[in-house]
Amino acid sequence: MRTLSAFISSSTSFGHCFFHRLTLRHSHKTLTSSLAPCFRRHFTPTMAAPEDSLRKALADKQSEVENQGDQVRSLKASKAAKSEIDAAIEALNALKLQKASIEKDLQATLSSADGSVNREAFRQAVSNTLERRLFYIKSFNIYGGVAGLYDYGPPGCAVKSNVLAFWRQHFVLEENMLEVDCPCVTPEVVLKASGHVEKFTDLMVKDEKTGTCYRADHLLKDFCNDKLQKDLNIAAEKAKELKHVLAMLDDFSAEELGAKIKEYGIVSPDTKNPLSDPYPFNLMFQTSIGPSGLIPGYLRPETAQGIFVNFKDLYYYNGNKLPFAAAQIGQAFRNEISPRQGLLRVREFTLAEIEHFVDPEDKSHPKFSEVAELEFLMFPRELQMSGESAKAIQLDEAVAKGIVNNQTLGYFIGRVYLFLTRLGIDKKRLRFRQHLANEMAHYAADCWDAEIESSYGWIECVGIADRSAYDLRAHTEKSGEALVAHEKFPEPREVEVLVISPVKKEIGLAFKGSQKNVVEALESMKEKEAFALKADLESKGEVDFYVCTLGKNVSIKKNMVKISKEKKKEHQRVFTPSVIEPSFGIGRIIYCLYEHSYYTRASKAGNEQLNVFAFPSIVAPIKCTVFPLVQNQKYEDIAKDISKSLTVAGISHKIDITGM
Amino acid sequence: MRTLSAFISSSTSFGHCFFHRLTLRHSHKTLTSSLAPCFRRHFTPTMAAPEDSLRKALADKQSEVENQGDQVRSLKASKAAKSEIDAAIEALNALKLQKASIEKDLQATLSSADGSVNREAFRQAVSNTLERRLFYIKSFNIYGGVAGLYDYGPPGCAVKSNVLAFWRQHFVLEENMLEVDCPCVTPEVVLKASGHVEKFTDLMVKDEKTGTCYRADHLLKDFCNDKLQKDLNIAAEKAKELKHVLAMLDDFSAEELGAKIKEYGIVSPDTKNPLSDPYPFNLMFQTSIGPSGLIPGYLRPETAQGIFVNFKDLYYYNGNKLPFAAAQIGQAFRNEISPRQGLLRVREFTLAEIEHFVDPEDKSHPKFSEVAELEFLMFPRELQMSGESAKAIQLDEAVAKGIVNNQTLGYFIGRVYLFLTRLGIDKKRLRFRQHLANEMAHYAADCWDAEIESSYGWIECVGIADRSAYDLRAHTEKSGEALVAHEKFPEPREVEVLVISPVKKEIGLAFKGSQKNVVEALESMKEKEAFALKADLESKGEVDFYVCTLGKNVSIKKNMVKISKEKKKEHQRVFTPSVIEPSFGIGRIIYCLYEHSYYTRASKAGNEQLNVFAFPSIVAPIKCTVFPLVQNQKYEDIAKDISKSLTVAGISHKIDITGM
Repeated sequence: MRTLSAFISSSTSFGHCFFHRLTLRHSHKTLTSSLAPCFRRHFTPTMAAPEDSLRKALADKQSEVENQGDQVRSLKASKAAKSEIDAAIEALNALKLQKASIEKDLQATLSSADGSVNREAFRQAVSNTLERRLFYIKSFNIYGGVAGLYDYGPPGCAVKSNVLAFWRQHFVLEENMLEVDCPCVTPEVVLKASGHVEKFTDLMVKDEKTGTCYRADHLLKDFCNDKLQKDLNIAAEKAKELKHVLAMLDDFSAEELGAKIKEYGIVSPDTKNPLSDPYPFNLMFQTSIGPSGLIPGYLRPETAQGIFVNFKDLYYYNGNKLPFAAAQIGQAFRNEISPRQGLLRVREFTLAEIEHFVDPEDKSHPKFSEVAELEFLMFPRELQMSGESAKAIQLDEAVAKGIVNNQTLGYFIGRVYLFLTRLGIDKKRLRFRQHLANEMAHYAADCWDAEIESSYGWIECVGIADRSAYDLRAHTEKSGEALVAHEKFPEPREVEVLVISPVKKEIGLAFKGSQKNVVEALESMKEKEAFALKADLESKGEVDFYVCTLGKNVSIKKNMVKISKEKKKEHQRVFTPSVIEPSFGIGRIIYCLYEHSYYTRASKAGNEQLNVFAFPSIVAPIKCTVFPLVQNQKYEDIAKDISKSLTVAGISHKIDITGM
Repeated sequence: MRTLSAFISSSTSFGHCFFHRLTLRHSHKTLTSSLAPCFRRHFTPTMAAPEDSLRKALADKQSEVENQGDQVRSLKASKAAKSEIDAAIEALNALKLQKASIEKDLQATLSSADGSVNREAFRQAVSNTLERRLFYIKSFNIYGGVAGLYDYGPPGCAVKSNVLAFWRQHFVLEENMLEVDCPCVTPEVVLKASGHVEKFTDLMVKDEKTGTCYRADHLLKDFCNDKLQKDLNIAAEKAKELKHVLAMLDDFSAEELGAKIKEYGIVSPDTKNPLSDPYPFNLMFQTSIGPSGLIPGYLRPETAQGIFVNFKDLYYYNGNKLPFAAAQIGQAFRNEISPRQGLLRVREFTLAEIEHFVDPEDKSHPKFSEVAELEFLMFPRELQMSGESAKAIQLDEAVAKGIVNNQTLGYFIGRVYLFLTRLGIDKKRLRFRQHLANEMAHYAADCWDAEIESSYGWIECVGIADRSAYDLRAHTEKSGEALVAHEKFPEPREVEVLVISPVKKEIGLAFKGSQKNVVEALESMKEKEAFALKADLESKGEVDFYVCTLGKNVSIKKNMVKISKEKKKEHQRVFTPSVIEPSFGIGRIIYCLYEHSYYTRASKAGNEQLNVFAFPSIVAPIKCTVFPLVQNQKYEDIAKDISKSLTVAGISHKIDITGM
C-alpha cells in the first residue's frame, strides 16, 4: 500500500456529492466545495519549490540553447572555420542534452507530486476486481447505462446491508435514537424553507452549438491541471498563476469563472465549439406530485429535512425532554451536471443522518468520558492555516482546549472514529478536518469532516456539524409552527425583560410606506443597542438609525419609541434547540473501505496475482464457507445441517460439497 | 375480533397500489384492479336474497301507503262518516309503521352486509393508536402534508427494519439469493420495454371549472355504493343494476366509464361542476436525468426491472447455472390520482421482490418437500367461479392435482405462508387466491395472491406469479442483448430443424413495399403451419396467407418459399428462462400485522381501556425493558451493565431506573 503515500498531495475533492450538501448548509455562497482549496493551500508550498526552480532552469536552458543556435547560424553565415563551427555545434548539442535532462527531472517531479500514475493504476485494479466480482454494476447497462447511476451487485449489497446494520447498532441502539423513515418525494415548500430551491446549484456552461453541458469549474480545473502537468515550457510565473486559479476555483463567482474561461480560450472539450457564459443549474431532480401538475416536488437531496419537520412530534415522543437524537437512513438524489469520480460522485446514494437536538446553553454529554481518551489524527483550522499537517490529538484535550467547540460535538467525533475504524478503515488514513471559518455559515458553531484517504485523495465521508438553531428556525419561520423546546422552572422566576414600544402613529406620519421596516428594525434591537439609542435620544432628541431592510439611515425622534425594562414572572424558558448533525455518505465509506481492504498476493502456485479484499467479519459479505474435508455422503449431510444452523442464526455463508 | 367476520363481503380492493403493478404485468388491458369484481361475483348472490326481498317489500308497502293515503283523501273529499275516515287513517298509520319497520330491517341488512360501521370503528381505533404512538406520521405535516405520503416514526421504523431483516433471512439467506440494489431513478427506455410508459395508467376525470382531478372509477363506485346504502327506496331492479356496475367497474373502457358517469349525472363531488370525459393518466413520477433536459426518466414503479436488466451478469455470477433467484428491497413510487385507503394506498412504498429464474422445461424444486405438508386456506379459480369459499388444502395435493401450476410456484407459496404467519399474521385471516383466467396475461402460467383480511377487506399483500419468459424477452427485444440461458449437452445432439427460406426476389416483385412484412410472416410460422402451407402450395400452386402486420391476406405462390426439415448437430440448448416472481408490499404487510396484533383490554384499575399491540418478538420494536426491582445505586449499575450487553447483542430495549 506504499503507493498511497503519494496521494496526500492530490486535489480531487471538487464539489463531491456528499460534501456539497454540507457546504450548502454551511454557507450562503455558491454551492461548490470549498474544501479542496484549503488543503491545496496547505500542500502547495512544499511542492512548489523544486518544480519552480526546475521550470526556471528549463526556461534558462532554453534561452541558452536559442543563443547557442543563433551563434552556430551566424558562424555558418560568416563562413567561419569548420573547427570553430563544429565546436559551437558540439556546445549546442551539450546544451540540448542538459535541457532534456531538466525536462526529465521536471516531468518526474510533476508526476511524483501528482502521484496520478500510481494512484490511477491502483484504483483501476480495485475497480476491476469490484466490477468483475459484481460488487458494483453500471445501472441499466444493457441500454448503455446512465452516468452516475450504479447498482450494488450481490456482494456489494451484502456489504452495504452489513454497514447499515452496524450503523444502526452503533448509533441508533447505543444512543436510543429515534429512527424515522421519510419519503424521497418532497414538496417544494420544504426545500424552499431549507434553502435548496434557491441555492443548491452548480455553475454550468453549454456547448453553444451542440448544447452539451459541462461543469464550468471542471473545465477550468482540467485546463489548469493539463497545462501544469503536460506543458513543461510554461514559465514558473504562469505555473504559479494556474495554481492560484486552482486554489481559488471554488470561490469564483459565475462572472469570474466566465472571465477565466474566456481569458484562457477554453472551448467545448469534445467539439472545440465556443461555450456559453456559466450559469447556475439546480441539482435537485424535479417532479410533480399528483395529476394536476400544480404541486412541484423534488427528490430529496438529503434526509435531514424529514427529521426537522417532525421535530415537534419527536420531542413529544421523547417526553418533551432534551437532549435526544433522531436518525434516518435513506436514498438521496443529486442531478449532477456531468458525474465523474466513478463511485464517489453519483446521482443517487444512501445517506445515514443523525440530528442530535440539544439545549444551546448546555452542550455537555453524559457519555463523553467513554470516548475522552481516544487519540487520532485531527486537523484543526489553525494547523491548516499555518501549513502544518494533521496530528494525533487526544479528544478530551481537543475539547478542553476549545479546538472542538463542545463536548457533544466531541462525543460524536469520537463515536464516528470508532464506527469507521471498527468497519475496517485504516486509522492512519483517517483524519478529522475542521472547517475553516470561511467554509462555515455564520450560524454554525463548529464543523468537522471525517476524511478518508483514497486514490482520489482525502474524501469527506462524514460531516459532523454543530448547526446551532438554524434549521429549526428556518422551518418555524416558513411553516408558522413553533419548533421549540421548553424548560419548566421548578418555581416561577422574576426576570427583567427589555420592552421596546415603537409609537406607530408618529413613525407612520414620518416614514409612510416604510413604517413597517422601521418598526421591525426598532423592535429587533438587542438590549445594549436599545439603551444606547435611548440615551442618545434623551440627550439629542433625534438620532440617525440604520434600517437594514431599507438599506439606509432614517432619523428617529424621541417621541417615536419607548424603551424600558420591566419585571415579569416566567414559568418556563422557551428556546430553539441547537442541532448537532453527523451525516454519513454510506457509498463513499464503502468505497474507501474497499480500497483500504484491498491487496494482491501471489497464488500458491506462484503463477498469478490474486486480488484480495481483507474485510473485517462485521463487513464481510460472506462470513464463512462450509465444506467437508472428505467426500462422503455422511459428511455432506452434516455440512448441510451446519449450513442450516448458520442460516437460522442469520450468518451468511457458502456451502461447498464438492469435497475439495 | 368478531367484528372482522363481516368484512368478507366488503369490496375494497379497487386498483390498490400494490396489486396495480401486478395487474399491469399480467394483462394488456387498462390497469385497474380486476380482483374486486371476482369476489363480488362470489359473495353478492348470498347477500342479495334478503336485501332484494326487503327492497321489494318496501316498494309494495310504499304503494299500499300511497293507496291508503288516496283513500283517506277521497273519504275526506266525499265527506264520509268520521268513523269511516278515522278507521282509514288508523289503517294508514298501521301501514306507515309497517313500512318503517321494513326500512329498519333493510337498513340493518345493508349495514351488516357492508359491515362498514364496525370495521370503520375498529380501523379508527387502530389508526389512532398508531398515530399517537408515532408508528406513522403524516409526512411534512407542519406544511399541511401531502396525500399518500407517510413517515415511519420510531416504533414503525423499528418494525419495518425487523420485517425486512426477517425477509432477508427467510428468503435471501435461506435460498442463497443474489440480492441487488438498483437506483430509483430509471431512464425511460427501460420502462418502455416493460410496458409501463404506455400502459401504467388510471382513468381520470377533471372538474371542468376548477381542474381538480378524480379517479373516474372511484366516482362511479362511490355513487353506486351511496345509492345502494343510503337510498332505501330504489327498486330491486335498480339495485341489481348498480351492483352489476360495481362488479364490472374494472372492466370498463374509458368510453363505458364516461357513458355511465353521464347517465347517472355524476358531477364533481366538491363543487357539483360538470366533469370531463375520462382519460388515461400515467402513474409514474416523471423527471429528467442530467442538465440537458433531453433524457426523460421516471421513479421506478417496481424494483423488478432492475433485476431483469442485470440478468446476464447475475447468471454469470451464478456460474451460468439455473435455477437461481435474485432479490431486491427498495422504494417504489406511484403518483396516485387521489390516494385513499390511508396507509394501504400510498405514493411511495417499500417493495421486496424476488425473481426466481428457472428452466421452463423443469420447474421442479429440490426443497419442495420441506413445505409439501403445509395446509392453509387456498382459493383456486374453480372455487371462485362456482361461488364457494376458500378452503384448506395441503400444498402437495394442490401441486399434484395441478391446482398450482408447478412445484417451484408451490414452494414459494409455502415459503410466503411461513413468512407471513411467522411475522404474526393470523392464519385464519390469510388466504392464497388464484387469479382468474381473465386477470392474467396470455403469457402467465399461473398467479396467486397472498391476501390478508383487514378492516379494508381482503388485501393483496404478496403476489406470486409464474410470468414465463415475458420480461426477459421484452428486454432482449428492446436492448438487443440476448438475455438467455444455455444448457450444454454432454455430447452433441442431432436434431431436425425447420428451415423456411422465403425467396426474396419473387416476393419483392409481387409485394414491393410489403416484402419485409411477408418475409417475416413466413419465417415466423411454426412447424405445423409451415408444412400445411407447403402441402397446399404443392397441390394448389397458390394459397391465401394472412400477414398480421398488414392485417390482410396475400397470395403466396409456390416459387416464393422453400420449406424443409434439415438435420443439424447441436451442442447446447439456448432458451429464455421462465421467471417466478414473489413480490411483497412491505407497508401493506406491516399495516395488516398491526390490525392482527391489536386488541384492547381494561387497565388494572379497571377505569380505562388500554390499546395493545401483541407483536411476536421477531417484529416487536422494543424487545424488552430493563428495570431494577428495588431503587438502589448498586442495582442501577447492574441494570446499566445489562443494558450495555443487550446493545452489544443488538437487542433493542428500554431501561427504566426509576425503581418502579
